[in-house]
Amino acid sequence: LDYQHVQVPFEITLWIMLASLAKIGFHLYNKLPSVVPESCLLIFVGLIMGGIIYGLNDRSPPVMDSDIFFLYLLPPIVLDAGYFMPSRPFFENIGTILLYAVVGTIWNVFGIGFSLYGICQVKSFRLQDVSLLHNLLFGSLIAAVDPVAVLAVFEEIHVNEKLHILVFGESLLNDAVTVVLYKLFRSFCEMPTIKSVDVFAGIGKFFVVGLGGVLVGLSFGFTAAFTTRFTKDIRVIEPLFVFLYSYLSYLTAEMFHLSGIVAIISCAMGMKRYVEANISLKSHTTVKYFMKMWSSVSDTLIFIFLGVSTIGENHEWNWPYICFTVIFCLVWRALGVLVLTFFVNRFHVNTITSKDQFIIAYGGLRGAICFSLVFLLPDFHRKKLFIAATTVVILFTVFVQGMTIRPLVDLLAVKRKRESAPTVGEQIHIRFLDHLLAGIEDISGHWGQYYWKDKLEYFNSKYLQKILLREYDQPKSSIVLLYEKLERKHAMELAQAGQLGHGLAHPSFLCSAFLCSSNDRTVITDQKLEDTPNPDVLDNMQEILARNLYRIRRTGPAYNRHTLPGDSEPAERAKEILILRHKSL
Amino acid sequence: LDYQHVQVPFEITLWIMLASLAKIGFHLYNKLPSVVPESCLLIFVGLIMGGIIYGLNDRSPPVMDSDIFFLYLLPPIVLDAGYFMPSRPFFENIGTILLYAVVGTIWNVFGIGFSLYGICQVKSFRLQDVSLLHNLLFGSLIAAVDPVAVLAVFEEIHVNEKLHILVFGESLLNDAVTVVLYKLFRSFCEMPTIKSVDVFAGIGKFFVVGLGGVLVGLSFGFTAAFTTRFTKDIRVIEPLFVFLYSYLSYLTAEMFHLSGIVAIISCAMGMKRYVEANISLKSHTTVKYFMKMWSSVSDTLIFIFLGVSTIGENHEWNWPYICFTVIFCLVWRALGVLVLTFFVNRFHVNTITSKDQFIIAYGGLRGAICFSLVFLLPDFHRKKLFIAATTVVILFTVFVQGMTIRPLVDLLAVKRKRESAPTVGEQIHIRFLDHLLAGIEDISGHWGQYYWKDKLEYFNSKYLQKILLREYDQPKSSIVLLYEKLERKHAMELAQAGQLGHGLAHPSFLCSAFLCSSNDRTVITDQKLEDTPNPDVLDNMQEILARNLYRIRRTGPAYNRHTLPGDSEPAERAKEILILRHKSL
Repeated sequence: LDYQHVQVPFEITLWIMLASLAKIGFHLYNKLPSVVPESCLLIFVGLIMGGIIYGLNDRSPPVMDSDIFFLYLLPPIVLDAGYFMPSRPFFENIGTILLYAVVGTIWNVFGIGFSLYGICQVKSFRLQDVSLLHNLLFGSLIAAVDPVAVLAVFEEIHVNEKLHILVFGESLLNDAVTVVLYKLFRSFCEMPTIKSVDVFAGIGKFFVVGLGGVLVGLSFGFTAAFTTRFTKDIRVIEPLFVFLYSYLSYLTAEMFHLSGIVAIISCAMGMKRYVEANISLKSHTTVKYFMKMWSSVSDTLIFIFLGVSTIGENHEWNWPYICFTVIFCLVWRALGVLVLTFFVNRFHVNTITSKDQFIIAYGGLRGAICFSLVFLLPDFHRKKLFIAATTVVILFTVFVQGMTIRPLVDLLAVKRKRESAPTVGEQIHIRFLDHLLAGIEDISGHWGQYYWKDKLEYFNSKYLQKILLREYDQPKSSIVLLYEKLERKHAMELAQAGQLGHGLAHPSFLCSAFLCSSNDRTVITDQKLEDTPNPDVLDNMQEILARNLYRIRRTGPAYNRHTLPGDSEPAERAKEILILRHKSL
Repeated sequence: LDYQHVQVPFEITLWIMLASLAKIGFHLYNKLPSVVPESCLLIFVGLIMGGIIYGLNDRSPPVMDSDIFFLYLLPPIVLDAGYFMPSRPFFENIGTILLYAVVGTIWNVFGIGFSLYGICQVKSFRLQDVSLLHNLLFGSLIAAVDPVAVLAVFEEIHVNEKLHILVFGESLLNDAVTVVLYKLFRSFCEMPTIKSVDVFAGIGKFFVVGLGGVLVGLSFGFTAAFTTRFTKDIRVIEPLFVFLYSYLSYLTAEMFHLSGIVAIISCAMGMKRYVEANISLKSHTTVKYFMKMWSSVSDTLIFIFLGVSTIGENHEWNWPYICFTVIFCLVWRALGVLVLTFFVNRFHVNTITSKDQFIIAYGGLRGAICFSLVFLLPDFHRKKLFIAATTVVILFTVFVQGMTIRPLVDLLAVKRKRESAPTVGEQIHIRFLDHLLAGIEDISGHWGQYYWKDKLEYFNSKYLQKILLREYDQPKSSIVLLYEKLERKHAMELAQAGQLGHGLAHPSFLCSAFLCSSNDRTVITDQKLEDTPNPDVLDNMQEILARNLYRIRRTGPAYNRHTLPGDSEPAERAKEILILRHKSL
């Protein structure tokens, strides 16, 4: 027996196996996951495992290595989140999300830090030796909402898309703020004196860390898109590039002390549309499937490790400090959401309701990021207290808040996610309105989001697409081609039967004209609208409608980490079309 | 800048990136890969990289770590090879393959070892200090044909399936022999005296190492199949189990000093048909795609590292020893193939032609396995000589033999692989003959391969399928369901039109009766053959023909590491059916 030789890969494989089997186990009993979130069950499994290890060895089980967490477990989850991010609601609410992520997080850090410092002044709690800086440092790591925990809970409760993106977007983008504040306070702790220059440098760092992350991510994303232009002859390694470039963007950002999470999200969002157009349908299935699989496993491992690491003798149980931490986390978050939403609602027509505000405040779950950060703290005599407080906050938010949020959402009758995909009509009207609003903004000289979106789209189709796409034209999926072929055949048959006339819906003409290409808007407004559609225009309409009709089925309406959007098989869709066709024949 | 922190994953990612980009680069110029095998180009890239590293640092570049090779790079390639192994030609030629792999390898080891010892006795070569045992140890590592090198070259020359499986199967199965002989001679080198008991123990080890590997592999394979019975609710992690279980089988075998290669191949071949039936179509695409991708990258990295490791000062250039090693490798392999084939041909009707024998002997390429084994040798004063000889043998076989084998195959007009898939008729006749031969063997009391195949099939459908498959019935792909639906519709339409009669092909009745289930053979021979087919039988025939008609398109005829079998999209097939249907309507 030569265990030493294979130990590392063997143990890694066994851990992953355990995680996967645990997942299968939960799903065998369908009632369990509907009551208790999976994250709680996994932490519970971890606690049991940790207990067993502790009992057998009589020493603390190994804690989750922060390096392993940040370098290997976190990137797949964030990549998955960024790649499947519904971009429309995200960009529509980007202002609000940034406000929550930046101002909200700073508010929480200082609120929690200062009020815990106040608690430390109470003599009977025996906490006078915890300085203000240490409290602020602790505040900076405990304030940040955790994307992994948020995802795990929110994907199961199906709230409406806007609410989901507000909480989830905040949890992703607050990484830049957390990184800066955590590193700032940590270096302040080690400095003898703090000059005001350092504080201003710290504020400047926000922009460097956040925007730097975006820049690194986008440049890797575009390089990835450019690379996939040349993979036509070796389809098999196409999926690899998606993973390699996004991972490199994360590592590069981490290397330069920028926000890795922001980088990998920008990379994924930047490359997605070009890569999807360049790679084959099968490669794309593999990319999506593997991303889901990987993030699912990472997430499972994180929660199990969280459980395992909780057991042991790393904790100092000063209950006043721990209890007040939990209370302050809840109170300051609630206050922050209330105040910030008050400002947000003043500038928006589509306001955030008080129910939504409650869910946003209540959904501020803490998770493995806090846990890894607290272990990364430099050694000082109260580190074990901070570890204990962090552990309790995480367990409290994941168990208590995570398990009660679903009943609360039911009780409050929070607006749910719509189950059905938007119809073709809706889709067309949304696009139509987008162009209309962009035109209005252009005429009125107001540079709003529609104006910029339109400009970006123009830049994209004029330059980016030409560089990054293999074929300049938007490629069509085989199912669309099939549908078009059938459509054409049908039209020909109708034409032969003499039934094809001017009966094609006239109102859709406007839409299709607006749709046909995003930068055609100015062209079309210049062009005289003819009274009768000519054959070319008709063809165009036909094609666009055909394309949309089947593309909409493919775009899943919302984000879910465990299933792939558009799960219906191409063959099944082909069947559906066939049946429709048979009926019409 | 904090490079230390991300160094390990960053450098791994960069190496993989380099490998992938090199692959893209070669394929951009279509003429290059058609003349020079990719493996040669990759070694060349590695040599350049190694030269650069050597020039910059002025010390030997890092050699490929044997642990990394055996634990991380080799398993994906072998898994891929095992999973896509064409099982019919493999089992039809298993006897010949085992003869080449076991007897042939032993022949080569002792042949090369003893004749090199003879060379060492020539005084002018200054090699008298290399003992017989050391020569035999060297022989044991240099004799084994390398699966990675064989695959890389043979997949590009498209020889006929039998020839391919003979060389490739030998290269895979000789691992057991190599492991035993290498470890035996290595321990003999360290022992003061060798008893005859040790020699007999060594012989016994062959069976333990080989059969143990098969046993470990099959048990993991069946566990994997059993696990995928329960993944219906979490499709996303299905592909994971295929990789986890096969990797565990490899690691477990290595841990017990069994043959890891044999284990992972048994695991892959054992689980394949059950796993494929249990998991979803999308999961299956992901498994296939990812396996191809992974093995392709591993293979690229191995050849690049081979090139990099060649540069440096690890070599002792004793040219007589090196040249004679190359010559003996060629001569003993040629002799071995000639002698063994002489015996094989005496017992077979379908003989191996002299052209095939030449290609088998010439295709005995050495590769990264020898290279890793030679670095694993215990330190002794002539290790650098062995490293130099191994390097030269590998470069000679990969470059000279690898580059000339394609022109030679053209020149000799070796029978090529048939390009087209077998027709439905052929397929039906093959199955028919199988059952017929099994029946004949049964009656004549001869326990041949057909008898055993039939028994195995019976055991499989009676026990294994019931345990390992989610649904007991062979599941149907959606495209087959679609086809069946159309077929039914068609039949109903014909029935309504009154055209459906007794016209359905009578001769196919026999075939379908033989086909309908493999263990029905005895049932059918007992059962009286009715004169007119009743409706049930007709339905059965209809269904079987429908199933086979479209299953055959799906099974790729031969093995290729860079493309997936059955590349035509389901949607495309649906289109085809649709067109056929339209025509018939």
